[in-house]
Amino acid sequence: MEEVATIIKIEQAELISAIDTVWVSICAAIIFLMEGGFALLEAGFVRSKNSMSIIAKVIIDIIFGGLAFYAIGFGIAYGASNGWFAFDTGITDTDIGLGLTISNKLFWFIQLGFAIAAISIVSGAVAERMKVWVYALFVVIFCAVMYPLAANWVWNPNGWLALRGFNDFAGSSAVHAMGGFAALAAAIVLGPRLGKYDQNGDPVAIPGHNLPLAAVGGFILWFGWFAFNPGSTLGAVGNWELIGTIATNTFLASAAGGVSTMLYTYFKYGQIDITMTINGVLAGLVAITAGCNIVGPDAAILIGLIAGVLVDIAVIYIDKMRIDDPVGAIAVHGVNGLFGTIAVGLFAVEDGLFFGGGSQLLITQLIGVLVIAAFSFILTFIIMTILKKTIGIRVDRSEETAGIDAVTFGVEAYTTFE
Amino acid sequence: MEEVATIIKIEQAELISAIDTVWVSICAAIIFLMEGGFALLEAGFVRSKNSMSIIAKVIIDIIFGGLAFYAIGFGIAYGASNGWFAFDTGITDTDIGLGLTISNKLFWFIQLGFAIAAISIVSGAVAERMKVWVYALFVVIFCAVMYPLAANWVWNPNGWLALRGFNDFAGSSAVHAMGGFAALAAAIVLGPRLGKYDQNGDPVAIPGHNLPLAAVGGFILWFGWFAFNPGSTLGAVGNWELIGTIATNTFLASAAGGVSTMLYTYFKYGQIDITMTINGVLAGLVAITAGCNIVGPDAAILIGLIAGVLVDIAVIYIDKMRIDDPVGAIAVHGVNGLFGTIAVGLFAVEDGLFFGGGSQLLITQLIGVLVIAAFSFILTFIIMTILKKTIGIRVDRSEETAGIDAVTFGVEAYTTFE
Amino acid sequence: MEEVATIIKIEQAELISAIDTVWVSICAAIIFLMEGGFALLEAGFVRSKNSMSIIAKVIIDIIFGGLAFYAIGFGIAYGASNGWFAFDTGITDTDIGLGLTISNKLFWFIQLGFAIAAISIVSGAVAERMKVWVYALFVVIFCAVMYPLAANWVWNPNGWLALRGFNDFAGSSAVHAMGGFAALAAAIVLGPRLGKYDQNGDPVAIPGHNLPLAAVGGFILWFGWFAFNPGSTLGAVGNWELIGTIATNTFLASAAGGVSTMLYTYFKYGQIDITMTINGVLAGLVAITAGCNIVGPDAAILIGLIAGVLVDIAVIYIDKMRIDDPVGAIAVHGVNGLFGTIAVGLFAVEDGLFFGGGSQLLITQLIGVLVIAAFSFILTFIIMTILKKTIGIRVDRSEETAGIDAVTFGVEAYTTFE
Repeated sequence: MEEVATIIKIEQAELISAIDTVWVSICAAIIFLMEGGFALLEAGFVRSKNSMSIIAKVIIDIIFGGLAFYAIGFGIAYGASNGWFAFDTGITDTDIGLGLTISNKLFWFIQLGFAIAAISIVSGAVAERMKVWVYALFVVIFCAVMYPLAANWVWNPNGWLALRGFNDFAGSSAVHAMGGFAALAAAIVLGPRLGKYDQNGDPVAIPGHNLPLAAVGGFILWFGWFAFNPGSTLGAVGNWELIGTIATNTFLASAAGGVSTMLYTYFKYGQIDITMTINGVLAGLVAITAGCNIVGPDAAILIGLIAGVLVDIAVIYIDKMRIDDPVGAIAVHGVNGLFGTIAVGLFAVEDGLFFGGGSQLLITQLIGVLVIAAFSFILTFIIMTILKKTIGIRVDRSEETAGIDAVTFGVEAYTTFE
Repeated sequence: MEEVATIIKIEQAELISAIDTVWVSICAAIIFLMEGGFALLEAGFVRSKNSMSIIAKVIIDIIFGGLAFYAIGFGIAYGASNGWFAFDTGITDTDIGLGLTISNKLFWFIQLGFAIAAISIVSGAVAERMKVWVYALFVVIFCAVMYPLAANWVWNPNGWLALRGFNDFAGSSAVHAMGGFAALAAAIVLGPRLGKYDQNGDPVAIPGHNLPLAAVGGFILWFGWFAFNPGSTLGAVGNWELIGTIATNTFLASAAGGVSTMLYTYFKYGQIDITMTINGVLAGLVAITAGCNIVGPDAAILIGLIAGVLVDIAVIYIDKMRIDDPVGAIAVHGVNGLFGTIAVGLFAVEDGLFFGGGSQLLITQLIGVLVIAAFSFILTFIIMTILKKTIGIRVDRSEETAGIDAVTFGVEAYTTFE
Repeated sequence: MEEVATIIKIEQAELISAIDTVWVSICAAIIFLMEGGFALLEAGFVRSKNSMSIIAKVIIDIIFGGLAFYAIGFGIAYGASNGWFAFDTGITDTDIGLGLTISNKLFWFIQLGFAIAAISIVSGAVAERMKVWVYALFVVIFCAVMYPLAANWVWNPNGWLALRGFNDFAGSSAVHAMGGFAALAAAIVLGPRLGKYDQNGDPVAIPGHNLPLAAVGGFILWFGWFAFNPGSTLGAVGNWELIGTIATNTFLASAAGGVSTMLYTYFKYGQIDITMTINGVLAGLVAITAGCNIVGPDAAILIGLIAGVLVDIAVIYIDKMRIDDPVGAIAVHGVNGLFGTIAVGLFAVEDGLFFGGGSQLLITQLIGVLVIAAFSFILTFIIMTILKKTIGIRVDRSEETAGIDAVTFGVEAYTTFE
């Protein structure tokens, strides 16, 4: 009987790893596709003269960022951590301590999607004016060191936030606030695009050149989130009920975010803002990312409704502060990453403040997201300022006027339609 | 030995649920992406001045329709049914009676994709002239009540059609005929676009503004069908051979639909109609959706060949009837949903008329699809007529001329390509 | 005890087939989506006047090629082989001899994706000048006979290359060199587009009309490769570690290909060529396809770096040879399919020349890829030449000037943006 039991156990371990590998592998591929979503969303939201250069920047996120995260970043994030960082390099075969049933390489591949998603948030905020090679340098720093540190704190089994019970299931803090507050710092140091503010300092609308293209990107991102959040289970065996819960919460928050933005912009401006509605959906998605595993469906809807309004207000406010974020990345990812992380402390079914769980989780959530946001903002601000004062981070005036596509890449996104 | 057997059973139940959750979860996500397919196909097939408004309508399908299907629709469709409807609300934990190995929430998530696919068919037929908020109201009614009733009849274990042995595997009736005949009624009540018919009442071609964009949508829909049909197994354990059969049938019918449209339009007009070819592929897909589980590959090809011709004839005929369907939704989904459901009664390997199975299944198929089509048509006609006579369903003449994008949304899909 | 063991065995066989079916089914669907990637990439890289006709050609790859591969091709590839070909027709239920745990139909469905990917490579090289029906005829020949022969040699358990230990895991030879060298022959026989070379015979750049659209295609292809390569395991049980290795190698080579193209074009021309960078990523993907299962991550990076430079040099060289390949298909798929296959003989961890494995594998790899490339080139050259001298393969001068979209299809990709 023991023999049989042993055989069963061995064979079941193989099946479990196979099931979880199918799950994670496909989720990781879909998460990877989200880069296409970022690229097309951003390209559609900027002027055509800079549309290929923004796609190039997202490709740089993938190829430079991906190699940096392979060579250095992953070891810092998931090596043997002292609570703040680790020193391993590359992908080792040692047990990471997360109870993984998949190979470390596959775990690397899904984590890759998170790292390059975080940096792709920044690419949107610096659109239409940043030098491409300097951007590539920042991508390497971000994916090799900055993002991995946040991932270490939040998801390494020995990370200081993980040990405190910080709940950032799929990365409202580690990915979105991290990317969003880096985006904020970068946009501030870069300064606004030429012509973005008039003589009185009032913002001038610079509409996106191809909104259907942006919609393609939006749909890809929306789709990708159904791999991003449920895929963060890192395995289906033992998690199959949770996966249904996460998918449902993710949808409900996104729909609520879209609805509230649509209603908000309609009642405020008399017209539905469809660009903002896409951002409202994304805001709902960002906000539910932290707590999709431990909030109920009603809370998911409420979180989405709030996120959809928050993003509208934030976009206006950021614009008034004369911080030029061409695609709304700071409002979507930074502000709602912050909100979503805090919302866990309010709405979590067991430990949330509003569910009688006291304030302990809320405080942990606040500490976690504020530290990550501040870390990302301050470090990016310093790095960008140093780069600005040394090699320069901004294309020159003539290139900005002519377009980065023409000058840096020698290309036009669209040729005469013959 | 019994103990071991019990342990095995428990552990295998966990594995089964995990496998089926991976399967359904990823299929559901891909089915969700089909909304992007609908949006881009429809946007490409209309004029640019209404392209963002049609994308907005598909987003409304998702966000308003999705929340309505969550709050009300799902309980009507899958609650304890008296054969015609159910009264549950929200997603309960009780056994739905379908032998599900996945969580009810995940089942909800995949059903969501079907509900919003059905209403997205309507969005195409009302393109370029319907008021957006009235459309949103209809979306809520459709996803909260109308579609759920059809789903109840066909897929609820106690539905009257389910009990009769109606075979509508992935929804040629419940999704496509349901959506297609609602689209027909809506297009009739709305009336044609300004300028669609000349003084003699002859149709004037209004070509789509961006056919490559429509092709993006078409490819996404085609891809999504390989989740839509096989994913309707709701689990892979016990169904793995069936999944291969379904995928193969689905492909063969789509290819045959494309081939026959290409040949038909070439021999009839001397030129291949590539727009219609995309619709021919979709027609093949719609037609095989009902019977993909129980027809052979040769029948799948035949069904596709017929569907590809049927859609061409239907488009011309509908146009001649002065019913204006800008994207061909009625011909693709209504006509071929009807045909595909009936085809099951003819070609099913065991019970089809042409395979010596007699006429019983055929009669059931006829009853089912005709009831659903009539139900959808009549109810939509009544609702739309009431809305027309009260709050009005059509944008005013000046808005229709200027474009809904500019007036309702204050936006241009494309700005000057600078 | 034996009884229990038997029960376990039976039930586990069911679970294994279910797991592997989920894996292959979803990978196959994603591989199918790659056709959309080919279509949009090629459409974006040509002039708008031929953009819908190139999408039509890819649809022809799918529908004519798919039906030909169903009716004839699959039996030639995977029937009982004498080492060179087989004579079965359609999809039988007999054991193919590959130890499949999935149904033969599902195996057919994933193989379909490989067949139509191979021919889609050709569609790019003949863009903007080939007659559509003659192209359709070639598609049928290619998918019914030519590609299946190569697949037989490489992947049939009795194929002569398979028996020699040829390692072409996911098809650098059988798919990419096969398609790429057919593309080369076709482009030579067709001759260059009007105006492609000036009076001195120097190439004139004909830029793609919609690079963001090409980028959509590029991202879809990149995504698809994470199903194409890992999915070639044909099952996850027993392969879960391998799947992680393949995904990682696939990513690393693609990233390295993009980086080296970016650097190469920057240092050579002073500007980053973003079009070539997309091709560089694809070149890295093509090159790693043969050996993704048996090279280490460092080798994957090296293979990608080389591929990224190779594609740049090849594009220039092919252009200088007055061979007009509008989308760079020959350089991406032909040259790097060749290189990638050979690279296995150099870098394979156990048997590679550079890892002390001697030259045996390298020689096998050389023989395999050279035979396939020569076979594909010569046969295509003969077929195209016969077609050229009989029914003609090229649209007439007036159609080429006006655009194939307008003349053969009676359509404009974009109408006035009103």
